[in-house]
Amino acid sequence: MKRTHTCGELNLKNVGTKVILQGWIAKIRKMGALTFIDLRDRYGITQLVIGEKLSSSLASLKPEYVIEVSGLVIERKSKNPDLATGAIEIEVNEIVIINKSELTPFEIKNQIESQEDTRLTYRYLDLRRPEMQNNLLVRSQMNHSIRNYFIENNFIEIETPVFGKSTPEGARDFLVPSRLNQGKFYALPQSPQLYKQLFMISGFDRYFQIVKCFRNEDLRIDRQPEFTQLDMEMSFANSEDVMQTIESLVKKVFLDIKKIKINEPITRLSWADAFDKYGNDKPDLRFGYEIKTLNDLFLKTTIPLFENINNKVIRAICVTGLLNKKDLEALTETAKQNSVEILPFVKFNNNEWSGSLASKLSDSEKQSLIEKYNLKEEATILFAVDDYIKASKALGAVRNHIAKLQDLLDPNIFKFAWITNFPLFEFSEEENRYVAAHHPFTMPSDECLDNFDTDKENATAKAYDLVLNGFEIGGGSQRITDPNIQQRMFDAIELTKEQVEQNFGWFVNAYRYGAPYHSGCALGLDRICMLLTGSENIREVIAFPKNSSGIDPMTNAPDAVTLSQLEELNLQIKK
Amino acid sequence: MKRTHTCGELNLKNVGTKVILQGWIAKIRKMGALTFIDLRDRYGITQLVIGEKLSSSLASLKPEYVIEVSGLVIERKSKNPDLATGAIEIEVNEIVIINKSELTPFEIKNQIESQEDTRLTYRYLDLRRPEMQNNLLVRSQMNHSIRNYFIENNFIEIETPVFGKSTPEGARDFLVPSRLNQGKFYALPQSPQLYKQLFMISGFDRYFQIVKCFRNEDLRIDRQPEFTQLDMEMSFANSEDVMQTIESLVKKVFLDIKKIKINEPITRLSWADAFDKYGNDKPDLRFGYEIKTLNDLFLKTTIPLFENINNKVIRAICVTGLLNKKDLEALTETAKQNSVEILPFVKFNNNEWSGSLASKLSDSEKQSLIEKYNLKEEATILFAVDDYIKASKALGAVRNHIAKLQDLLDPNIFKFAWITNFPLFEFSEEENRYVAAHHPFTMPSDECLDNFDTDKENATAKAYDLVLNGFEIGGGSQRITDPNIQQRMFDAIELTKEQVEQNFGWFVNAYRYGAPYHSGCALGLDRICMLLTGSENIREVIAFPKNSSGIDPMTNAPDAVTLSQLEELNLQIKK
Repeated sequence: MKRTHTCGELNLKNVGTKVILQGWIAKIRKMGALTFIDLRDRYGITQLVIGEKLSSSLASLKPEYVIEVSGLVIERKSKNPDLATGAIEIEVNEIVIINKSELTPFEIKNQIESQEDTRLTYRYLDLRRPEMQNNLLVRSQMNHSIRNYFIENNFIEIETPVFGKSTPEGARDFLVPSRLNQGKFYALPQSPQLYKQLFMISGFDRYFQIVKCFRNEDLRIDRQPEFTQLDMEMSFANSEDVMQTIESLVKKVFLDIKKIKINEPITRLSWADAFDKYGNDKPDLRFGYEIKTLNDLFLKTTIPLFENINNKVIRAICVTGLLNKKDLEALTETAKQNSVEILPFVKFNNNEWSGSLASKLSDSEKQSLIEKYNLKEEATILFAVDDYIKASKALGAVRNHIAKLQDLLDPNIFKFAWITNFPLFEFSEEENRYVAAHHPFTMPSDECLDNFDTDKENATAKAYDLVLNGFEIGGGSQRITDPNIQQRMFDAIELTKEQVEQNFGWFVNAYRYGAPYHSGCALGLDRICMLLTGSENIREVIAFPKNSSGIDPMTNAPDAVTLSQLEELNLQIKK
Repeated sequence: MKRTHTCGELNLKNVGTKVILQGWIAKIRKMGALTFIDLRDRYGITQLVIGEKLSSSLASLKPEYVIEVSGLVIERKSKNPDLATGAIEIEVNEIVIINKSELTPFEIKNQIESQEDTRLTYRYLDLRRPEMQNNLLVRSQMNHSIRNYFIENNFIEIETPVFGKSTPEGARDFLVPSRLNQGKFYALPQSPQLYKQLFMISGFDRYFQIVKCFRNEDLRIDRQPEFTQLDMEMSFANSEDVMQTIESLVKKVFLDIKKIKINEPITRLSWADAFDKYGNDKPDLRFGYEIKTLNDLFLKTTIPLFENINNKVIRAICVTGLLNKKDLEALTETAKQNSVEILPFVKFNNNEWSGSLASKLSDSEKQSLIEKYNLKEEATILFAVDDYIKASKALGAVRNHIAKLQDLLDPNIFKFAWITNFPLFEFSEEENRYVAAHHPFTMPSDECLDNFDTDKENATAKAYDLVLNGFEIGGGSQRITDPNIQQRMFDAIELTKEQVEQNFGWFVNAYRYGAPYHSGCALGLDRICMLLTGSENIREVIAFPKNSSGIDPMTNAPDAVTLSQLEELNLQIKK
């Protein structure tokens, strides 16, 4: 290559060396007879000094021009300790323009003000900004760290098909019309779940893959039509084996990328405990503020709201400090969005009580609250009185909202948790039947193996989710490998023999030929990379994401196609 | 994990150790009071010895059952030196059946006779066969070797979108109807070509990715609707830099996987030379048999076929040995399939001449042939008289056919070649215009930079293909980074401003903001893995391939979808 060095590597050791550098002009400034240029590439910035001799070549230079310079490395007078190359500069003796640049639609620097659609339209320039370069660099390092881990642990990377078969019992599929088999469609995989289970039947023992998956659902802030997951499966392994394997993996990744050493085992919470303490199944453990049930404290209360509550529960969280009116209104709005209409509260300050319920609190209730929460400093207690699920969900949302208000969400602190013992089923109002909460190949827990299909309400699964800072970043389960249990599962979710045969026949049939027990997991790499880089959303860690309408403003995909393209597929668009 | 060892790792050092193994029953044989079982997993086979005490548990065991055994490692009396574990066996004291197996539709062993569609229907069992396990294991190792190489050389892995925009000037796209933007379609990428070029404009400097690509073309033996390529691009790099980078890569991969050390540089041939010597642009260099033009030898001939040939040429190859009638007929058939109707020949044996032309050969012609080919041993010379292109193509096919007949295609010999200086354009009869031979972003060679758009016939490109044993395994080029040259290219292929704007506007616009010069390459990993494993076709190195009708016989994809799925997409199938 023509360049002798990148813009990120020269230092005092190189003083006196003749070099050729190539890169982008980040800045030009004149100081008397001299001109200084910051030359930028992916590796860093190097300062160029240009004397009057070359002033004619200088006249035409502008920011973002790509140039090649030859020169001598010299020591700088005023060093810049923040820059890897800050001790040297290049005394330039030749400049060649490689390519010119028009004025860019936004500046090539961190923290710009542009609309996201402008950034996406000119994504190739947006990706020139250092923070975006760093995001994708971290992503590359993350992938490499993950793959090394699995290869070192005897896993085999196997590719699964992108062109698969559409199956019900999941999210909506993306379809690809077949030209060779007209009127038929491939479906893009929502995950390689069934394929990876077949790999275990094949005896591959340990499989992994970093793979694109697809869900044809409405888009949300944290969702893209295509996303990337780390997918893995292990034979002769139960939930515990997989959780340990994944736990070592994430510790390695955080050590490799963030230089954070996590020694202690990852916290484990049953799904029921997580819901009880945090009101959801992906608790942010960077802060406390656990939800508690306080019915016992208010058995003799005169507070109207707390009297005669029948099946309702009094749930509460106690937070540090005295929340102001504006915050309390905002939190009430959050409770309302979660179907709880009011959010009564009391404030504690120097043994003084105030707030919407304070006047009706009896002395013994005050004393109980002081003991329950070990109150000493200023504190605010927020209550939700409703059925257990509603009250818990609302306070879970309130809890997260408070953390934002109180600035408790340090992006450089990483709190993992395993959530275990998920419900095996959930009731679908739409279909008026129980459906598999995860997927119908999830192994019931040992405790309910005898009656999971008769007591569906209480049946739990050998399933586990990995949670980080309030995000579900992955999940998995032990799979059903016993054809009898599989049949009971299908019966439990009321699939007929014909439905099973048509949709999963090819798959369940495979378990008749000698399957090991096996378990696996999948991690959402877009989200993990978002958290690793402290990004606001997953689009910041994807090179060319779609906007919230599923559109790429750069290419304008999706777009109309020609009539002949549709004719080849024997399709037409309905009026 | 419950198993203490895999079935591939125990040896004499482990004698006396209590172990737990889990695996598949490969074989059961009784010898007197003892029963021997070969227990198989991905890592190997271990012999189990079972005494009469356990005969009751033995009764129900069958091949392909999955079992768990506990026992003691003991030294074998009759050792098996072909097996890594051949010096030991396990004296079993407990057997647990993990899962049963019905009789498999074919035996789990190498070299089975089953129809390919049967193998694909039960692919999970087909993949249990050791040779298929090895194929996918090699593929995993290959991927890892490739990725390590690029990471070590400062390349960044970046994912490109699966959902892109349909563009003309290429193969047919697979389309994905959008539900959120009805009547519009995403297109699946034929390659990440445009995205990776944008990465260079973004300044990522060195990009790589192992990525699925899609072509909606008719299937052939060596083609799948989805395929995997190694894609890379380098900034401030010309063709030479990329060829050197890829050359080091393939040498590393062949060293890592095949333990073959390739010291010499890879042969380079211009496209014109390759065509002249081998009749195609992907010559198999495992054997010689170069094609030569012999017009000069027959200037005064009396052979009717060689007289008055006008613009035709007399092309020939000389092969070792005397081809028999059956072979000659087969070769003539190959010539016919390549539009050359007859394949005259002479045989040379101990200074005796025979064959269809022998009687008319003059003495001086005989002498010239002896000198031209340095004839000493038995040899056959085959002629094709036609226009240069037809004759060369036909003899190119004949040359490959002879190599098969003479068993010259040792799959353990690997002969690479770079083919360079490809034509920049090819004339499309269908469209009645010159089109880009590769793609319209390929940089013209330095020699034709001034006149590539006026002398299209002779314009060549800074493009290069990597060929291995007669297969094109990859290719790339330096890209056009100068907007003026790009405009001349579009003019040369007669694209109007409107067509350019509509199809590539978003892309060519990017080059107005400071692009480095850059070059890249893509390698076909299915083919490379096929060659690495000595497989017959690429389906042998793909876990779940489609058959030649584009169908997966296991899942029956592609398949009909429900009316409501089509309605959500606002599509209907035409009658």
